[in-house]
Amino acid sequence: MSTKKILFMTGHKVYADTFWNQDCIETSRKLDFSVDVPALQHDCLDTDWKKLLPDYDAVITTWSSPCCNAKLLSNCPKIKIIGHAAGSVAMIVDQSTFDAGIRVTTANYIMAEAVAEWSLLSTLMAVRNVLAYTQWGNQNSMNWKRAFDMRDLKRSTIGIWGMGDTTRHLLNMLAPLHPGRIIVCSNHSSASSLAEFGAEKCSLEEVFAESDIIHLLAGVNHENLFRIGEKELRLIKPGATLINGGRARLVQEQPLLQELQTERFNAIFDVFYQEPLPEDSPFKQLKNVIYTPHNAGFTGRERFVPFILNEFARMFRGEPLLGEINRQRHLTMTDERLGR
Amino acid sequence: MSTKKILFMTGHKVYADTFWNQDCIETSRKLDFSVDVPALQHDCLDTDWKKLLPDYDAVITTWSSPCCNAKLLSNCPKIKIIGHAAGSVAMIVDQSTFDAGIRVTTANYIMAEAVAEWSLLSTLMAVRNVLAYTQWGNQNSMNWKRAFDMRDLKRSTIGIWGMGDTTRHLLNMLAPLHPGRIIVCSNHSSASSLAEFGAEKCSLEEVFAESDIIHLLAGVNHENLFRIGEKELRLIKPGATLINGGRARLVQEQPLLQELQTERFNAIFDVFYQEPLPEDSPFKQLKNVIYTPHNAGFTGRERFVPFILNEFARMFRGEPLLGEINRQRHLTMTDERLGR
Repeated sequence: MSTKKILFMTGHKVYADTFWNQDCIETSRKLDFSVDVPALQHDCLDTDWKKLLPDYDAVITTWSSPCCNAKLLSNCPKIKIIGHAAGSVAMIVDQSTFDAGIRVTTANYIMAEAVAEWSLLSTLMAVRNVLAYTQWGNQNSMNWKRAFDMRDLKRSTIGIWGMGDTTRHLLNMLAPLHPGRIIVCSNHSSASSLAEFGAEKCSLEEVFAESDIIHLLAGVNHENLFRIGEKELRLIKPGATLINGGRARLVQEQPLLQELQTERFNAIFDVFYQEPLPEDSPFKQLKNVIYTPHNAGFTGRERFVPFILNEFARMFRGEPLLGEINRQRHLTMTDERLGR
Repeated sequence: MSTKKILFMTGHKVYADTFWNQDCIETSRKLDFSVDVPALQHDCLDTDWKKLLPDYDAVITTWSSPCCNAKLLSNCPKIKIIGHAAGSVAMIVDQSTFDAGIRVTTANYIMAEAVAEWSLLSTLMAVRNVLAYTQWGNQNSMNWKRAFDMRDLKRSTIGIWGMGDTTRHLLNMLAPLHPGRIIVCSNHSSASSLAEFGAEKCSLEEVFAESDIIHLLAGVNHENLFRIGEKELRLIKPGATLINGGRARLVQEQPLLQELQTERFNAIFDVFYQEPLPEDSPFKQLKNVIYTPHNAGFTGRERFVPFILNEFARMFRGEPLLGEINRQRHLTMTDERLGR
């Protein structure tokens, strides 16, 4: 097979530096790929990608890469696949990409593993009530009262909204901890496929009403945007913990703030309506919430491009892809433009 | 088989209330056991256990129960087994118990699962550097700088001192997270038995010198008491995290304090030289340490006595026990009297 030519289509030097590493170089060599990364030298935001693209067999994209629709790729018969070194491809391709017969894959499964790790950490912080029973550096004091108000994970119900890559990883990570019960609300998964992961299929209302730990891991698409409001939040059990490592805009902001201010339940959030969370945000005053600075999916980025290069190799060899996104899945992925 | 008579030998009402629950009652009924729990009514610390014991076929002990040595049991030919509803039996039996042919079991494996869960939580708090990147309630502020100083667990080395029940559970819990490398220092485990858990056998020095995350999970016996001093602590890599969910007295106090004050590495501790940790302790001033109030093993206590009752049933049926402690193991278990 002749050397395949691949373009990493980002104009941002920071992304080129983040994603391009020794492992990428070695993987390219091993697979006989010639990869061009124009932004490795300096920002090149004014690049005329349309002019460059016809030379290449495959394209790597990442955050803020241009949308690879049929128009951009109109003069590129050699391009057979787009590989996204990040998560959702909602803005990276559109339906015309699929019409043109171009295949699409993403490193979402890799990033989802990091988000699942954060979700596991949050689950354990919630059941062990670290807000009450932990001293962080010299910042606060810890409660030594011996009748600890902690949950036994083995007698807890974990409810998850969404059955995407993050949930799959999380269910694998939870298995050796033997949670009491796991319930999942998903339109796209059957009861039997959930049972393979030790989970029961349930409604969105059941996730909120029955869970001790609630994970919001659905994508922000037209159906889910701001879908959680006062009605669902009022269903949450006293003392339960609402965990959002997915997207802030799954939940309506004002009802969320008001329900948290009652201190009836706790929360752990990695995602915010405005980032960084403003210093004067009323959310910063809540005593019952733990925040992390949208870093749940941060680790493992050095594996994104090697994964995509291996996806390209699988396609050129005619093998199935591990991260392929089809026309239907594209419609349900998080679209960052929604609700802005 | 005739109904077996069992005595829960604690004089403390608080322990009777902690451990005796509906599940114990149902398990006893199912197994045809008649269990007496004198302390359920009120503290009975002046009970003459030696007088009561000859009536029984088995004895349940817990923290501060008297030592079931040959002297206490000299007139009790019916007693075949002691079941400890807690962890170490170092103070609950002595070598004369084994000489008398009495078998010994413990719910240590159940408690160890809770400590392993805490150890997993601590591992994740360490790799994700929650001290730097988390806001706890309205207590502090979080760092939003985007070049997060976090570890990738998949490229981290986890070092563990001790291969007891807690380590076994922890290794099972870590498996789906695929840590880069796991090294274990254990006198009692072979390289091949560790390999079954995905771990490599190594020396104590290697645990300290090569690990990004160090777990102290050895028992405090004569060999291990205060075994870690300045020499080992100086081996710790900059930015690593020392995690102690086992026993404070594995480590010498002053060298530990001095090394932590350099802020060269971080720590997470559930156990202390004096509990509660005094308000004026210099440990409370450390910025690089997370503390929990000796609650790592708190959850799951309601399962201790049902587990012991099932151990008794296995023995009466002639089946192997799950938590049996033999003469050799007894000598290596944590002895709370050491170093006090």
